[in-house]
Amino acid sequence: MSNTFGTLFKLTSFGESHGKAYGGVIDGCPAGLKVDFDFVFSELNRRKPGKSLSASARREDDEVEFISGIFEGVTLGTPIAFLIRNKDAKPDEYDSLKNIFRPSHADYTYMAKYGIRDHRGGGRSSARETVVRVVAGALAKMILKLQGIHIIAFVSQIGDICIPDNIVIADESLVNQSTLYCPDKETGARMEALLTALKEKGDSTGGVINCVIRNVPAGVGEPVFGKLQSALAHAMLSINAAKGFEYGLGFKMASMMGSEVNDEFVSDKSGGRIKTKTNFSGGIQGGISNGEEIFFRVAFKPVPTIMKEQSTIDTEGNSVILKPGGRHDVCVVPRAIPVVEAMAALVLVDQILLSSVGRLKQ
Amino acid sequence: MSNTFGTLFKLTSFGESHGKAYGGVIDGCPAGLKVDFDFVFSELNRRKPGKSLSASARREDDEVEFISGIFEGVTLGTPIAFLIRNKDAKPDEYDSLKNIFRPSHADYTYMAKYGIRDHRGGGRSSARETVVRVVAGALAKMILKLQGIHIIAFVSQIGDICIPDNIVIADESLVNQSTLYCPDKETGARMEALLTALKEKGDSTGGVINCVIRNVPAGVGEPVFGKLQSALAHAMLSINAAKGFEYGLGFKMASMMGSEVNDEFVSDKSGGRIKTKTNFSGGIQGGISNGEEIFFRVAFKPVPTIMKEQSTIDTEGNSVILKPGGRHDVCVVPRAIPVVEAMAALVLVDQILLSSVGRLKQ
Amino acid sequence: MSNTFGTLFKLTSFGESHGKAYGGVIDGCPAGLKVDFDFVFSELNRRKPGKSLSASARREDDEVEFISGIFEGVTLGTPIAFLIRNKDAKPDEYDSLKNIFRPSHADYTYMAKYGIRDHRGGGRSSARETVVRVVAGALAKMILKLQGIHIIAFVSQIGDICIPDNIVIADESLVNQSTLYCPDKETGARMEALLTALKEKGDSTGGVINCVIRNVPAGVGEPVFGKLQSALAHAMLSINAAKGFEYGLGFKMASMMGSEVNDEFVSDKSGGRIKTKTNFSGGIQGGISNGEEIFFRVAFKPVPTIMKEQSTIDTEGNSVILKPGGRHDVCVVPRAIPVVEAMAALVLVDQILLSSVGRLKQ
Amino acid sequence: MSNTFGTLFKLTSFGESHGKAYGGVIDGCPAGLKVDFDFVFSELNRRKPGKSLSASARREDDEVEFISGIFEGVTLGTPIAFLIRNKDAKPDEYDSLKNIFRPSHADYTYMAKYGIRDHRGGGRSSARETVVRVVAGALAKMILKLQGIHIIAFVSQIGDICIPDNIVIADESLVNQSTLYCPDKETGARMEALLTALKEKGDSTGGVINCVIRNVPAGVGEPVFGKLQSALAHAMLSINAAKGFEYGLGFKMASMMGSEVNDEFVSDKSGGRIKTKTNFSGGIQGGISNGEEIFFRVAFKPVPTIMKEQSTIDTEGNSVILKPGGRHDVCVVPRAIPVVEAMAALVLVDQILLSSVGRLKQ
Repeated sequence: MSNTFGTLFKLTSFGESHGKAYGGVIDGCPAGLKVDFDFVFSELNRRKPGKSLSASARREDDEVEFISGIFEGVTLGTPIAFLIRNKDAKPDEYDSLKNIFRPSHADYTYMAKYGIRDHRGGGRSSARETVVRVVAGALAKMILKLQGIHIIAFVSQIGDICIPDNIVIADESLVNQSTLYCPDKETGARMEALLTALKEKGDSTGGVINCVIRNVPAGVGEPVFGKLQSALAHAMLSINAAKGFEYGLGFKMASMMGSEVNDEFVSDKSGGRIKTKTNFSGGIQGGISNGEEIFFRVAFKPVPTIMKEQSTIDTEGNSVILKPGGRHDVCVVPRAIPVVEAMAALVLVDQILLSSVGRLKQ
Repeated sequence: MSNTFGTLFKLTSFGESHGKAYGGVIDGCPAGLKVDFDFVFSELNRRKPGKSLSASARREDDEVEFISGIFEGVTLGTPIAFLIRNKDAKPDEYDSLKNIFRPSHADYTYMAKYGIRDHRGGGRSSARETVVRVVAGALAKMILKLQGIHIIAFVSQIGDICIPDNIVIADESLVNQSTLYCPDKETGARMEALLTALKEKGDSTGGVINCVIRNVPAGVGEPVFGKLQSALAHAMLSINAAKGFEYGLGFKMASMMGSEVNDEFVSDKSGGRIKTKTNFSGGIQGGISNGEEIFFRVAFKPVPTIMKEQSTIDTEGNSVILKPGGRHDVCVVPRAIPVVEAMAALVLVDQILLSSVGRLKQ
Repeated sequence: MSNTFGTLFKLTSFGESHGKAYGGVIDGCPAGLKVDFDFVFSELNRRKPGKSLSASARREDDEVEFISGIFEGVTLGTPIAFLIRNKDAKPDEYDSLKNIFRPSHADYTYMAKYGIRDHRGGGRSSARETVVRVVAGALAKMILKLQGIHIIAFVSQIGDICIPDNIVIADESLVNQSTLYCPDKETGARMEALLTALKEKGDSTGGVINCVIRNVPAGVGEPVFGKLQSALAHAMLSINAAKGFEYGLGFKMASMMGSEVNDEFVSDKSGGRIKTKTNFSGGIQGGISNGEEIFFRVAFKPVPTIMKEQSTIDTEGNSVILKPGGRHDVCVVPRAIPVVEAMAALVLVDQILLSSVGRLKQ
Repeated sequence: MSNTFGTLFKLTSFGESHGKAYGGVIDGCPAGLKVDFDFVFSELNRRKPGKSLSASARREDDEVEFISGIFEGVTLGTPIAFLIRNKDAKPDEYDSLKNIFRPSHADYTYMAKYGIRDHRGGGRSSARETVVRVVAGALAKMILKLQGIHIIAFVSQIGDICIPDNIVIADESLVNQSTLYCPDKETGARMEALLTALKEKGDSTGGVINCVIRNVPAGVGEPVFGKLQSALAHAMLSINAAKGFEYGLGFKMASMMGSEVNDEFVSDKSGGRIKTKTNFSGGIQGGISNGEEIFFRVAFKPVPTIMKEQSTIDTEGNSVILKPGGRHDVCVVPRAIPVVEAMAALVLVDQILLSSVGRLKQ
């Protein structure tokens, strides 16, 4: 349950931050897919730290070793296992944290749940686990690509700096030119300035990622408990530090009127398909895609590790002062871009496979 | 998948709006629970239309018949099936909509997915399906009650009218005195006025529901893909018209600093348990409850049925004008209160059962 | 889990022997299937008691009410719920058994597991639950029929009377002419004589059912833990009183040599497909169908209710003598014929759906 | 699905015979288990080839590397991943088989299902995959041991040589003294003689494994589709070359009378628990354990690889003669002993965890 995602295209994830390796097993990847290994590596590169001030200093090659399920470069239909060794692990650095519950980290909750924890770098709760999702997401994207489906995520907010409202859907090249994955150059510059200032203060901040999925055909998604937005929300909230999810106009819709936000259907006689005049719904109605662009937003909190003294307690319940030290991400949001895309890709492939069995073949 | 919710405490839902009945099967309800049937009925009453201007005119007794799994008032551990007959169904009223795709309804997406649909009142996509969840949620609440866990949802926003910010956690009696489940009397009055005005205009609006869960012990929730917030987000986004979910400070956290929102741990020596000084996290860290109050918010869009003419197309792709008619909810948000609570209860019971097997018994 | 069967075509079963009703929910039935209600009723008729001496005297109409998921005779893709009311239930007849653990029944084990049980007619453990499977199996058979797949089960053994070895695969018309579903007339007569003798003695006996599945294409079944034979064995052992399962030559193969039982491949140039010269494997290799006939056998124990005094204990642990009384099946095996077929149909439809997503569409 | 086994204690298996490695991920292993690594290795040793004439010549160290989920020798509650590298893989040896469908192997069915296959040593269909199950089973056995539950499997038949009927339940020490895991010395000697003779002939044979599970408390197993025997049958039929499963008296019960095989309950006043006088049922009634010994039998076919020429076809449909060559197991049954035990252990741990949530805690 807990470490497996998906129904037909299933990723099982494993590994701890300073254990031997992270890895995953993809069960249900259709046979016959030619694997683009370069693409896997380029996706991992996008997630790597160090592109910008926002990121911490841990550097890893994130070299992935595929163990099974691929034969002469093509998927066999059998489980695809892969490993990413933890080369840069420095577990001893964490000895001082062994008996401390860091504020807003998962140290205490893991201990409360399991009665034991791997204290080194957060163990299983570390965001480094998302490297596994990026690898699996890369394979999912290859399948989506065959159907013309494309996912693009971008940073729309860091701290209190937001992109202008009129940039609803990003130009992908602008996104990729930015180390912060922000499609608006001027806003990106202000975000960098904010991060520099926070770095100096030893503080951290959060942000928001927008994601757009193009060319999903109408009819993908399952009613009731398997709604496409439910699966997306589940996926996004499983990313470390995510605090909120909305799709279409999201929370804004709460204050609007039906007459304002209803999406009228129109016939696209030339294209031979049904369209909507507006897309306030975000491409999903009743849990099922309607053929329009799917878009959603994910909010992230500031990373809890900061370069300031904090008051907390140890495992004995004694008050202690947590001294700053170790790695420090001012803002994880840009690094979460490929993770958001990967999780969206996993959801989409799974739902497309599920949808393919929903009606009798003629 | 699609119509079953939960892993160990599983609800399977069935029924269409104007079919014979709605119903559900709960598989995994522990044996030995004394069923409080009055409570089931009182929960159904909370969901009924007609308490306020916000609601549509369809009236049903929502009489639930328990079919199996309960013997002499006590659960057997076998599946609990129940039926709610559709007494007030008037399927013929919908004949005029048979070939029309209503804007922002699921008419078109169901047709795209299945190649067939029950056009009467939205069929399976109708929000009336949530009656099933309320029944199952009532049983879940009975189990939670044995452990002292209590869930309370309330309306924090309707249209652009919000409760004051300082009412973070509501006084339950104030909530229940309000037909709109709004804990602030003055705000509630303004909301009623807004609804009256919208009723006259034939328009609709959305809103936001806040939910608080009290007394969840630390250690509930599963890491990585089974995070408690993931399960809650999944559950909430599966409710009709829901467009967003956030927990703790949610989207606000995106613009804040780590030093502002980190929750320091303190020892509650008297209570013998670990607490946090603040609870910006919303009671969950790393996907696992930390013993503080869990709180989250759910945004709802305006109901798409409005008493205004709308332009749309028919199943042949021809442009048509959709005339107003039929039932009309100005705002579904108050009626979604017991649904939000029910889904939260289903998530909690399931996660508590899952958590009970996470570590070796000593 | 426990009360749901299948992965994509899922049956959830509910009901107790002397509760209000039995019923089921099929989630995942593809949309667009024209439901042959007459066929459902004819399948239920095959399961009814009273055709032969082998059966007990309880008579029910087994009238099935479809609640949802079917619109104008066609499946919607939404869950198909159905009910079979217990009209002939006489729960008071069982008062004397309230505190008795009947030998080789599930009275004690249900009590050990749940701490409570419905003692009336075995409650949830009654074989009457299989009526639910027959209804769902009828729908599954309709889907299989569209693909030319046909399932036929027959009685090969009752007590120590077996059909001759050379009747490996039955002529269906001979099967259906026999009240005992035995394809060999002379053997059937001897079986009837045995049952008459046992009836007089108040005793019961077991038997074996053979099942053949025709026209399954090559490539159905999942490797490793999802092998087709695993799913079939799981399904068959879930039928009340089943004690064993074998496929192909089964247990006989243990004593044979590879050179005797290997199935050589031959090219069916005219048919354009690959065949095997012999089919000792029973149509499955490595968990996946090879296009040959699938065949398997299921062993059933004698029904434990007999018309003889038996020594046992009550719920307090006191020794008691269980007096004969109530209904009595001399042999359930003929009535299990449609159940075996139904479970085979559920497995096949599920596996065919799963197999349809196993490789990339070209 | 296909490559994951279990509901709460879940093993995901991966790897191909001549790929880089086999491995597995156990999700749901309770936290706090002290891992006995020596026991893991001793279990792997039991599965190794080369102890007897029955086994093929491939030798591997079966060195297992644990990747995650264990910290300082204790399970964390997080997924336990492990790898067994294929050191002895000689993939080139299989070049001649690239285009041949070997009789009674899975070459053709994998190709029919996936359109691609790893032809080297059977790829994913190789019995070497069971090494993964033995590792996971070893962990499961550690958990069972804490509860006093013990599993012992032994060889009861090889070819047409069976142990005497009166050896229903084996003396474990006798089993382990025998290279063939046969508890009867004289029978074991005759089995060895048979295997020697078959080796000379280049032929193979099958056999039967009996398995006994001791000290399972009453109340384990799930009704209806989750019956303990269903789970065991599913597990056993997923083992390579398994053709049949029976529990209790199994197929023999088909020819017996109720009065002969009903298990009377008796009070074990001293032991304070309910017992049955006989145990023809095999420790399970209505799908739930009754506290008696659970026993079952699994039939295996002869391995299809033989040292004789066989007629078959190639991937183009041309007739070819398959020349003998490569490794050759005369009989895999003894090597399947630890696999049967491992699968039984996986089933038991899973069912015990499931059963622990079946009733309200008092």
